[in-house]
Amino acid sequence: MAVERKLRMGMVGGGPGAFIGPVHKMAAELDGKIELVAGAFSQSAERSRAAGKSFGIDPGRAYADYREMIAAERKRPGGIDFVVIATPNHLHLPVAKAALEAGIAVMSDKPATATYDEVLALEAAVEKAGLPYGLTHTYAGYALVREARSICASGRLGAIRKIAVEYLQGWLSQPIEKSGQKQAAWRSDPALNGPGGCIGDIGTHAFHLTEYVTGLRVTSLNATLRTVVEGRRLDDDCNAVLRLENGASGVLMASQVAAGEGNGLRLRVYGENGSIDWRQEDPNRLRVKWLDGPEEIRHAAGSYLSADAREVTRLPGGHPEGYIEAFAVLYREFADGLLAWRAGEPNPLPATLPGIVAGVRGMRFIERAIESNRLGIWVEF
Amino acid sequence: MAVERKLRMGMVGGGPGAFIGPVHKMAAELDGKIELVAGAFSQSAERSRAAGKSFGIDPGRAYADYREMIAAERKRPGGIDFVVIATPNHLHLPVAKAALEAGIAVMSDKPATATYDEVLALEAAVEKAGLPYGLTHTYAGYALVREARSICASGRLGAIRKIAVEYLQGWLSQPIEKSGQKQAAWRSDPALNGPGGCIGDIGTHAFHLTEYVTGLRVTSLNATLRTVVEGRRLDDDCNAVLRLENGASGVLMASQVAAGEGNGLRLRVYGENGSIDWRQEDPNRLRVKWLDGPEEIRHAAGSYLSADAREVTRLPGGHPEGYIEAFAVLYREFADGLLAWRAGEPNPLPATLPGIVAGVRGMRFIERAIESNRLGIWVEF
Amino acid sequence: MAVERKLRMGMVGGGPGAFIGPVHKMAAELDGKIELVAGAFSQSAERSRAAGKSFGIDPGRAYADYREMIAAERKRPGGIDFVVIATPNHLHLPVAKAALEAGIAVMSDKPATATYDEVLALEAAVEKAGLPYGLTHTYAGYALVREARSICASGRLGAIRKIAVEYLQGWLSQPIEKSGQKQAAWRSDPALNGPGGCIGDIGTHAFHLTEYVTGLRVTSLNATLRTVVEGRRLDDDCNAVLRLENGASGVLMASQVAAGEGNGLRLRVYGENGSIDWRQEDPNRLRVKWLDGPEEIRHAAGSYLSADAREVTRLPGGHPEGYIEAFAVLYREFADGLLAWRAGEPNPLPATLPGIVAGVRGMRFIERAIESNRLGIWVEF
Amino acid sequence: MAVERKLRMGMVGGGPGAFIGPVHKMAAELDGKIELVAGAFSQSAERSRAAGKSFGIDPGRAYADYREMIAAERKRPGGIDFVVIATPNHLHLPVAKAALEAGIAVMSDKPATATYDEVLALEAAVEKAGLPYGLTHTYAGYALVREARSICASGRLGAIRKIAVEYLQGWLSQPIEKSGQKQAAWRSDPALNGPGGCIGDIGTHAFHLTEYVTGLRVTSLNATLRTVVEGRRLDDDCNAVLRLENGASGVLMASQVAAGEGNGLRLRVYGENGSIDWRQEDPNRLRVKWLDGPEEIRHAAGSYLSADAREVTRLPGGHPEGYIEAFAVLYREFADGLLAWRAGEPNPLPATLPGIVAGVRGMRFIERAIESNRLGIWVEF
Repeated sequence: MAVERKLRMGMVGGGPGAFIGPVHKMAAELDGKIELVAGAFSQSAERSRAAGKSFGIDPGRAYADYREMIAAERKRPGGIDFVVIATPNHLHLPVAKAALEAGIAVMSDKPATATYDEVLALEAAVEKAGLPYGLTHTYAGYALVREARSICASGRLGAIRKIAVEYLQGWLSQPIEKSGQKQAAWRSDPALNGPGGCIGDIGTHAFHLTEYVTGLRVTSLNATLRTVVEGRRLDDDCNAVLRLENGASGVLMASQVAAGEGNGLRLRVYGENGSIDWRQEDPNRLRVKWLDGPEEIRHAAGSYLSADAREVTRLPGGHPEGYIEAFAVLYREFADGLLAWRAGEPNPLPATLPGIVAGVRGMRFIERAIESNRLGIWVEF
Repeated sequence: MAVERKLRMGMVGGGPGAFIGPVHKMAAELDGKIELVAGAFSQSAERSRAAGKSFGIDPGRAYADYREMIAAERKRPGGIDFVVIATPNHLHLPVAKAALEAGIAVMSDKPATATYDEVLALEAAVEKAGLPYGLTHTYAGYALVREARSICASGRLGAIRKIAVEYLQGWLSQPIEKSGQKQAAWRSDPALNGPGGCIGDIGTHAFHLTEYVTGLRVTSLNATLRTVVEGRRLDDDCNAVLRLENGASGVLMASQVAAGEGNGLRLRVYGENGSIDWRQEDPNRLRVKWLDGPEEIRHAAGSYLSADAREVTRLPGGHPEGYIEAFAVLYREFADGLLAWRAGEPNPLPATLPGIVAGVRGMRFIERAIESNRLGIWVEF
Repeated sequence: MAVERKLRMGMVGGGPGAFIGPVHKMAAELDGKIELVAGAFSQSAERSRAAGKSFGIDPGRAYADYREMIAAERKRPGGIDFVVIATPNHLHLPVAKAALEAGIAVMSDKPATATYDEVLALEAAVEKAGLPYGLTHTYAGYALVREARSICASGRLGAIRKIAVEYLQGWLSQPIEKSGQKQAAWRSDPALNGPGGCIGDIGTHAFHLTEYVTGLRVTSLNATLRTVVEGRRLDDDCNAVLRLENGASGVLMASQVAAGEGNGLRLRVYGENGSIDWRQEDPNRLRVKWLDGPEEIRHAAGSYLSADAREVTRLPGGHPEGYIEAFAVLYREFADGLLAWRAGEPNPLPATLPGIVAGVRGMRFIERAIESNRLGIWVEF
Repeated sequence: MAVERKLRMGMVGGGPGAFIGPVHKMAAELDGKIELVAGAFSQSAERSRAAGKSFGIDPGRAYADYREMIAAERKRPGGIDFVVIATPNHLHLPVAKAALEAGIAVMSDKPATATYDEVLALEAAVEKAGLPYGLTHTYAGYALVREARSICASGRLGAIRKIAVEYLQGWLSQPIEKSGQKQAAWRSDPALNGPGGCIGDIGTHAFHLTEYVTGLRVTSLNATLRTVVEGRRLDDDCNAVLRLENGASGVLMASQVAAGEGNGLRLRVYGENGSIDWRQEDPNRLRVKWLDGPEEIRHAAGSYLSADAREVTRLPGGHPEGYIEAFAVLYREFADGLLAWRAGEPNPLPATLPGIVAGVRGMRFIERAIESNRLGIWVEF
C-alpha cells in the first residue's frame, strides 16, 4: 500500500551525544512512511542547528525550544504531523502536553514520564486530545516477540505458571556519569530522570515485555533496589519477584552494573505444557520447549509463524533484522495509525503498538517497585 | 599414584526404580579406586537381592536393612570401608549416624538430612566420630565449576556484586507422583523428604553452587515458595532474593514445573570487572565476560585453566565429560581423603569436596527459605 | 560530517516480486546520504509506475526502460547521481555500460555480469569512464567481517593455512521456478542468469568473502557442480577445493538445496596461531580461537575492535544490526566515494568497498568452477 | 539383565603416555560387564608393570609382550575373554591375528590396521576364527548419533542429497612429534602409523560416521591431502569431495592443523525434506531442520527419540553424557555380543556396533584417498 506523502516528524531531543536521536530518525524513515523535517534537538540553539544539519533538515526548522517548534510548525504549511520525544524523562510530560494541546500527535521515548503523578496527567492529556500517542518500547517491534505473544494468546502453552525476565547491562559498572558521559549523566540525576534509575530505564522494558507477551497483568511485587556504584544517586541494580493476575509468579532482574553484559534482555514464559524463551541479543530466533517433544527454534520469516510475526518481517529467512528494524515496526504502526486517525477512525492504533496504557503501567511499576523496596515487603499493584 | 587395593563401598538405597543407585556405582568406580561390594538397596529383601545381582555383587552382601549391613560388614574381613547413602532424605541421618557410630565413613546424597534439626545432630555425629563425611553436590565436580571458583578466588573479577543462579526442571509439571513415579513420590511426601520440596531437592544445589563458587556466604534472603501443581504437598517452584556477606545481592530461582526444561542449573557471577557464566547442560565451557575486552569461552582441559580445573579432567580438549565424570571427581576426592585419613591425616578431605559444613548450610538455607516465605519478609541467615 | 544534499539514486529492476528492490532502497537511504528518486523498476510501464508509487517517488520518474531513464535523468536538473542495478544478471552489463557512458556512476548487484566475457567488457567500460563503480557483496558490510579482515591483515593468526567457507540455502530444494516464483525463475534460466546457477548466485559471495577477509587470492580450484533438482537447467549445489596464493588450501561449499537452511554463509580461517569463525546468521559475533588461550567472542561495537570494524557500527553493543545495516555500509562508502570523486579525488572508493576488481574475480571464479567441473580436474585461476 | 560374571579383558598397548589406555579401561568397565585383568601395556616389561599397577591389576598379569599374554592367559583358569588393542596401528593386525588364532575375541582401536592389504588379511582371520571382532569408532556410541541414524533410516528426510562431514583438530599445528609428544610421534611415523596421517587418524572417523548414519556407501571420491607442518612425514590436512551410492554428494574435511579446534567432529546430512546436524563437542543435542516448520533440537533421553537412541542413554534428560559413555556403549554391545556368541548365536554383534566390515571400509577409504590425491582426480571406491 503506497503512501500519498510521507508523514512529517519533528524531534525533541536527540541532539549531539544522544545515541537515540539518529536511531529514531533511521527507524522512523526506514519504511518510507515518515520523514524527519524539524527538530528542537538541543536546548542550545547552536547545537540544535548542528544536529539539524547532520540530519539534513532545513536549517530554518532546527529550533532551540520545543515550544517554538510547535508554534512555528503549527502555523506553516506542511508543518509536522507528529512529534517524537527523545529527551531526558523530565521533559516527556511537558513536551507531550504541549504537542497534544497543539493538536499534534506524539511518539515518545519510554518511560512515559518522570513520575507516576506525571503519567496520570499525561493520560488525561492524551484522552482529552484524542490524538494518537505511541510509546517506543522498542522490543515489542521484534517479529519473534510478536510470535511469543501469539503463542501465549493461542493457549498452546496452557495456563502460564511462571515467567523469568531479565535485562542485564554492564555499561554503568563504573561511575561514568561523573566523567561526562551524557547518557549516563542525566540517567543518574533524579531531577532529569525521575526517581527510578535502572528500574525506570530498563526495568520498565522488562516489565512491559512481560505483560505484552503474556497478556497478563502484574498484580503485586516484592522488589529490591540497590545502588551498587558508590556515590550514584539512583538505583543501578534491581531484583523483583512478581505475581501475575492468574496466580503465576515471576522474577524480574534488571541491572546496569552487570559487568560484561551488553543489552541482555531475555524473557522466558513457562506454561503447563511448554515454554518460550526469547533473547534480544539473538532476536531472530525464538526457542519453544515442550513437555514432550523436541525443543523448537522458530526463525524470523518462517512460513509457520503467526500472522502477527510474519507481517513485521521485511527480509527472507536467514537475513537478520535487528534493533533498528524492530524500532521501525513501531513507527510503521504509528504512521498507519495516524493516517487512519486522519481518515476518521476513532481508535486507530493497533494493540501491538504500546501506547498510553503501557505508559501508565510502566510508571506504576516504577512507583510500586520503589515503594516495595522502601518497605521491604510485597506491595499490591 | 596407584592404589594398593580398591576401597570397598556399601550402598544404602539406590535399588530398583532409583535413578541414582547405578549412577553412584558408575561414578564411584570410574577412577578405579572404589568398588561396590555390599548394599541394603531396598527395604524389601527380595528387591535388595535383585539390585545386588544387577550390580554384580556377592549375593550374601545384599542386605534388606542398613543396620544389618553395617553390623555384618563390620565383622567380616574385607568389610566395607564406607557407606554411600542413596535413600530418601528421612533416612540420611539414621543411616549416617549408624555408620559413623560403627566407625565407617560416609558419603551421602544431598540434602544432608530431612530437617535442620537433624543436620545439627548429624554435624555432632560427624564431629564425634572424626570420620570422613562427603556430600554429593555433584555439580561441584565439574572442571569448569572449579575454574569458576578459581577465578572468583583470584580476585580478577574485582568485588563480587551480583549473582544469578537458577535451577529449572520440568519433570514435575504434572502430578506424576500420583501415578507411581517413584522418584516423584517420595520427593512429594513430607515424611520422607522433609519440609522443603523443590527448595530442598534442587534449591540446595543452586545455593551450594553459589557459595562454593563465590566463596561468599549468604547472609539473608527473601524467598517465595509456591506449590503450582494442585494437590501437591510440597513446594515445586521457588524464587528468592539473596544478600551475600560482602553486600552483593543475588537471585535464586528453582523450579520443577518449568515445562520443557531438563536439568537447567546455571550460575552467573558479576564482579566489578567482569562476570562468569556456567551452565550444567553445557558443562565443558565457561563463559567469562569483561568490561573491556572480548568475551571468553574457557574449555575443559584448556592449558590456560587453573590447576584446580585441570586436575579433575580426564580427557583431552574437545572430548566431552559429563555428569558421571563430575560425580566421580567427588568420589575420587573422597577416596583419596579416606586413604589419607587412614594414614593418619586429621583433616584429609580437600576444600573442593563438599562435606558436613555444606550440609549444615544447605539445611539452614531450606529452613530459612521456608520461614521467609511463611512471613513474607527478609530473614537473616 | 553532514551532507549538503542527498545523492540521487535511480534504480533499474527491483520492481514487484523482487525482494531486493525495497532492500536497496532501505539500505541506500538508511544513513541519510542517498535518496531514491527515479527508477526503471520493470519492463512493464505499468508495473514500473506501481513500483515507483510504492517507493513514493515522483510518478514522472518511474520509467519503463533504463535507457529512457538515463536519457531523461541526464537532461533534467537534479537528475540522478548514480544508478543501482537490481536486475537479473543478463542486464547488468548493458545497464552499467549505458550509465557509465552517460557519465553516471554505478552501484550493481552481484555477480557483476552474466558471463566472464561480459565482465571484461564492463571492466573496460569502468576504466574508460573513470566513474565510481560499486558491487553489492553485502556481507562485506558487516562490522565483524571487517574485524575478521583486520585480524587477518594484522598477522596475528600467523600464516593462513586453511579456509572453510560455506553458503547453504534450502529455498530451491523444490522446483519452485516452475510454479512462478519470480526469484527462482530467472535464476534458473541461463539466458537471464548466465551459466553459473548456485555457483554464481551465492558461490560468488562465498568466494568474495574468502578473498576479502584473508587478503589472499585463490589460484586454483577443483570444483564439482551438480543439478540436484530434476529438470533444473543450472547447478544448484557446488563443492570446491581451493588453493590460495600462499599455499593455503580451502573448501568452498555452496548449495541452494540444503533443505532447512536459510542463508547460511559462514567463513572460517585457520592460521598458524589461531582461527576465526564468522556466521552471517549470527553476524554481530566473531569467534576467535587460539592455540593456547580461551576462545574469544568479539561483539559488534566492542571497544577492543579494530577501527575498521568500529566505524561501521551505528549502535551500542548488544543492539543487533543486521542485513540492511550491512548493506547500508556499502552504500555509505559508495556515497562518500562519489562525493569525493566529485571533489576531484581520482580513486575515491575505499578498499573496503567491493568494486570492479571484485566483479572480475567473481566472474572468473564462476567460469573456472564450471570448467573444472567439466573436466573433473584442478584448474588454474 | 544381570551378568553372571564380568568378562575379562586383556589390553595390548595403552601404557604410560597413551591417553587412550585409561579411557579404554573406564569405558569397558562403566556398565559393570567387563573388567580389565591383564595387559601387555608396553614393550618395556617395567613400564608394562607400572601401567598394570596403576590399573590395579594382578602384577603377574602385566606382560611385556602380547604373545606372552595370549599364551599365558589362554592357559590359566579365568584367563581373558577378549583382547582390546590400543597400540599404534602397525600392531593392530599382528595382535588381532594372534588373539583370534588363540580363540580370543578382539576389540580394536581404529583404523583397523596400518594398510589396506593388512585389513584384508585381518578380514580373513576374523572370518576364519568366527569370533566377535569390534572396532572402536567411538562416536557411533553417542545416543544422538543413533538418533541421526534412525532418522535417516526412517526415510523422513526423503532421499539424501548432500552430506557435509568435518573433523577439525588443532593439536598438530606445531611439530610436537619432534619434541617427544608420544601421541604425535607414532602418528607421524609411517612405519608405525601406516601411510595415512590425518586421513587415517580422524578422516576414517568422519568417513565411518557418514556411512554409519546415512546407511549409504561412498562410491567415489576426489581427495586432496597436504602436509602443512614442515618436515612432517604424513598428511595433516585433508579435503575430499565424495559421491554416495544414491547419487548424493558430500564434502569431507579433516585437519589436525586447524589451530584452535579441539575435537570438532560434525556431520550434516541434507535430504529432500530436511536435514540433521550433529556435533561431537555438543553431543547430547541433535539439530533437525525442515523445509517447512521450526528447527528442532532433539535432546538425549527425550521420550520422543527412537528406541535405538533411548536405549544407549543412562541418565535422565539434561544430565550430560560424554565421550566415555559413548565409548562404553560400544563395549556394552561387544560384551553382550560376546556372551551371546558363547551361548551359540552365530552372528551376535548388533548392526549398531562397528566391526570388521567398517574396518575394511575405513582402510579402503584411506587407500583411495591417497590414490586420488596422488593422481589429482576422482577415483572409484
